[in-house]
This record gives sequence, C-alpha cells and structure tokens, in this order.
Amino acid sequence: MPGDGTVAVIGLGLMGGSLALALRRRGAAARVVGCSRREEVRRAAIENGAVDWAVERPDLAADGADVVVVCAPVSRIPQLVMRVAPVARKGALVTDVGSTKRWILERSAQAAQAAGVALVGSHPIAGSEQQGFEAAREDLYEGAVAVVTTDGAGEADLARAERLWTSVGARVVRMTAAEHDRWIARTSHLPHLAAALVARCAARDGDDARRVGLLCGPGFRDTTRVAGGSPDLWRDIVETNRDSIAAELDCLAAGLQELSAAIREGTFAKVRELLEEGRRGRAELLGGGDPGAEE
Amino acid sequence: MPGDGTVAVIGLGLMGGSLALALRRRGAAARVVGCSRREEVRRAAIENGAVDWAVERPDLAADGADVVVVCAPVSRIPQLVMRVAPVARKGALVTDVGSTKRWILERSAQAAQAAGVALVGSHPIAGSEQQGFEAAREDLYEGAVAVVTTDGAGEADLARAERLWTSVGARVVRMTAAEHDRWIARTSHLPHLAAALVARCAARDGDDARRVGLLCGPGFRDTTRVAGGSPDLWRDIVETNRDSIAAELDCLAAGLQELSAAIREGTFAKVRELLEEGRRGRAELLGGGDPGAEE
Repeated sequence: MPGDGTVAVIGLGLMGGSLALALRRRGAAARVVGCSRREEVRRAAIENGAVDWAVERPDLAADGADVVVVCAPVSRIPQLVMRVAPVARKGALVTDVGSTKRWILERSAQAAQAAGVALVGSHPIAGSEQQGFEAAREDLYEGAVAVVTTDGAGEADLARAERLWTSVGARVVRMTAAEHDRWIARTSHLPHLAAALVARCAARDGDDARRVGLLCGPGFRDTTRVAGGSPDLWRDIVETNRDSIAAELDCLAAGLQELSAAIREGTFAKVRELLEEGRRGRAELLGGGDPGAEE
Repeated sequence: MPGDGTVAVIGLGLMGGSLALALRRRGAAARVVGCSRREEVRRAAIENGAVDWAVERPDLAADGADVVVVCAPVSRIPQLVMRVAPVARKGALVTDVGSTKRWILERSAQAAQAAGVALVGSHPIAGSEQQGFEAAREDLYEGAVAVVTTDGAGEADLARAERLWTSVGARVVRMTAAEHDRWIARTSHLPHLAAALVARCAARDGDDARRVGLLCGPGFRDTTRVAGGSPDLWRDIVETNRDSIAAELDCLAAGLQELSAAIREGTFAKVRELLEEGRRGRAELLGGGDPGAEE
C-alpha cells in the first residue's frame, strides 16, 4: 500500500516528477525515492520536496522498494523493469506509465515473474507536449483517467496499482493491454500524428512562413498543440503500437478520400455529413461533458 | 471613422455580437445598430448594452450607417451586402467577417460599386467552436489578427477598415483575397477538416464509444476541439474555398501515405523525421511565441 511503504520513481521527467510531487504533497507514500541520470534534476527534485532522496542508478533507487513506477520513454521501460525487479522487495508492485502496453508487458513479464514481483501495466492519460522535471506539477494526475491493465495480474495487485493512482487524484479504469492499445491509438496516437502532419503541411514553403504564421489563430494552436511533443518519445510510441496505429491511419486516409471526392464532385451535402459525423462522434466520446465546447 | 459615426452590425452571433459589445464598451462608435432575425437576440443585445438599438431587417439597420459590418455565414454575405449597400450613407464602408474572401468579394463588388459604398473584405481570426450571441465576448478580438483585403480598395478605405479592427483590439494585416484564401486554408480550414475526420475515426463502432471515451485525454480534446463547430458554417467555408482546401487535403493525404509506408516498412527513423518536421513547422509558423508549448 503506497501510504505505508517506499515508492521508487524511476525517471523524473514530466510524468515521474509529477507523480513524485503528488505522492509527497498528498502524504500518499511513507517515502519516495527518485532516480534520474541528470544530477541537476536529482538536486532539484530533492530541493523542492518531490522526493525524499534521489539517486542515479535505477537498481539503487528500487532497492527494497514496495512499489516501483518506471516513468521512462516506452522503448526503455522493459530494460528498466529487468534492472529493478530483482532488487525490489519480494512481492513488490512494479508498474509504469508507458503510452503503449502490450509491447512493454510482453518484454517485461518474464523478468518480473522470475524476480517474484507483481507487474501491472499503467497508463495515466495526462501530460502535455512539455517535457522534463521543470514542467512537473503536483496536480498533473488530478481528475485524469489512469488505465490499469489486467493481463496476468491478480486482484490484489490490481487493487494496489489502483490505490497508487487514486492516491494522486486519478480515476482508474481497468482493461486488457490489447484493448488499451487499440483504443488509445484512436484517442491519442491518431490525433497526435494528424496534428504533426497538419502542421507540416501548413508550414511547407518556408519563405511564406512569416505571413502564413499571421493567420494561425487559436484553432491552429489547439489543433496542432500536441505536435510540439518530443519526436523521440513519439517515434517510440509509433513503433510499439504500429498495428493499431496503421489501422487508424487507414481510417483517416479513407475519410480524407471521401471528403476530397465530395469537394471535387461539388456534393457539399456530403461534406456537411462528414463534418456532422465528426461533431457527433466527438460529443459521443466526450459524453457531452466537454467544458467549453458545444453549447 | 467609427468613433464618429454609426456602425451597423448585421448579424449578432458570436462574431457580430462580440464586435458590437466591443465597439460599445470601448466607446469606439457614436452609435451601434444591430440586426438579428431572432427577437430574443435583439432584446438581449439591447439589454446588455451591446447595441444602442436592434432591428430585424438588414436594410433598416444599415439605413444611413457610416460603417456596415456583415457578420453572417459566408454563403449569406453577398446577398446581405446587396441589401445594405444601397441604403448605407454614400461613401460608407461595408465590410464583413467571412472566413473566405475571394468568393464573397466576387459576388459583392458590383453591388457595392453601384451603390457608391466602399467594399473592403475583413477576416478577424478569432472565434471558437461556440456560436450565438450568448457566446459573445467583448474581448473576442483583443490581440487577434484581423486580415483586411486590398483588392479594389483605396488607401483611405483600407485605413477605415483598419481603424474598425484596431478599435476593438485587433492587429491588422493587409493581403490580397487570394493570398488570404490560400493561406487560411492551411492554418484554419485544413486543421478543422482534419480534426473532424480524426474525431469521426475515433468514434466509429458506436458500441465501444463509452469505453473509448474514457481514453480521451487533453490531447484529444484540444486536437479535435474545432470539430465541435457548426457543420453548416463549415460546409459553406469548404464550398467557397474549395480549390485551396482541395490542395491542402492532397498535402495531408500525401503526408499520411508517407507515414503509413514508413510504419509498414519499419523505417522508424523516417517516422521520427516526419514528426520532427511537424514540430519544427509549427514552431516556425508560431514564431516561437506560443505560450505553453515547447519549452
């Protein structure tokens, strides 16, 4: 139970830094140990009270921990699980914050089992295009949904993972890793890639950029905001959820083709229908509860 | 000069209502007359001081006005210009807030010339997916860019149109209607259509919508926010800027194809490159001055 034990947070970027801050400020862990390769981040995390202590090596941070949360780019998570699992307390909960779940679990499950720790995948749907400990906020997870994956996990371990996320203000949803990966491709990965491609189109012909830029209003800013995110982190996400993402890109390409054909043929009733489907779809997904959207 | 004269605002939705409110609250017009087909909107506009007076018929609102601003859906603007031009003061400035400019000017210029009024196209880049007078805000144009089109307009008339927009806090940029239409297709019309298609993809298979909806985080909300806008308004915009929009959709389709091919072939360095181009393109367009984006 986080409230009683030591939580090791491996990686003190936006996600890990915010988790550590939230755990400490809410008194949700007896002790929080951080891990960062960067000395200035370790010092900053200690100074502003995000962690009780911080070290450079993941295996030292996780040594004897009751809960280990790996907060690293997706591609680095399996190797970090392999390093921390053998040193955590027997029976400890090891989890992560990666944006794709099957790829990580497939590569981490064996090491966790061999070490006698409980591996449960997590994905708190929070964060922004910002990065690094300097962007960390103690309220990042407040009101966010945190997915906890059920694959190969017992009820007690799922409940421990849920307590971790509810203790920092998140609302927990259980699903399989496959469900998560398929659905998050729709709601996060596709929007991200579309935003990047839209920004790329808008910025072609560098010589006009200054004047075209004058026409970028709030709609452009919001629609492409996520495209400001790290190409490295997102390269990882695309690689580790490639099948689901490819299906979403096909769906978008089909929609584009329908729309382009309607415009070429001058069937603007069809254009309106596609726009209406987009509006209705968005409202359905957001359950009509989107503050500041449709009146 | 707006400060000295009567401004008629034809249409009291989000754009017109906000303009009327701003003109009155800033004392930027001697008198503001509104026009709305809906009796409750006319009453509300009078009650909260957005207008000195409001009437139902455009030709009565514009009668003797020094400045007429047509704030209606694009497809209705030319016919409204035809109705207001003959009754406005001789030499009056007639302008609009439509999101496409060539289509409107081509259909309105003759009527304006025949009536002896100065027609200057405007497009203040403000607004949101919300609609109607109830969403109007006196600060909607503060800090926004307002495009003023130079086609067929003399310096004195351009200066009058500029004063109108600067008087409500906007920053004015001059360009031709063709430049506006080509560039706004990139920075507004493409993002809007992409957002609608992304939301439509994310929401396919209605039965999963509730659970998929749980995975919609801030990224999804922002990226698709504009898709909450009116399908009718946007149908109009697509129809009246079809060539520029078709070119943007082709650009997006080409980018999608490149990205899909890279994923299928497993060349993730290429995926990273496309993402990096999107990030860099966005930063270039926004001039590095986007608050809250890239650190």
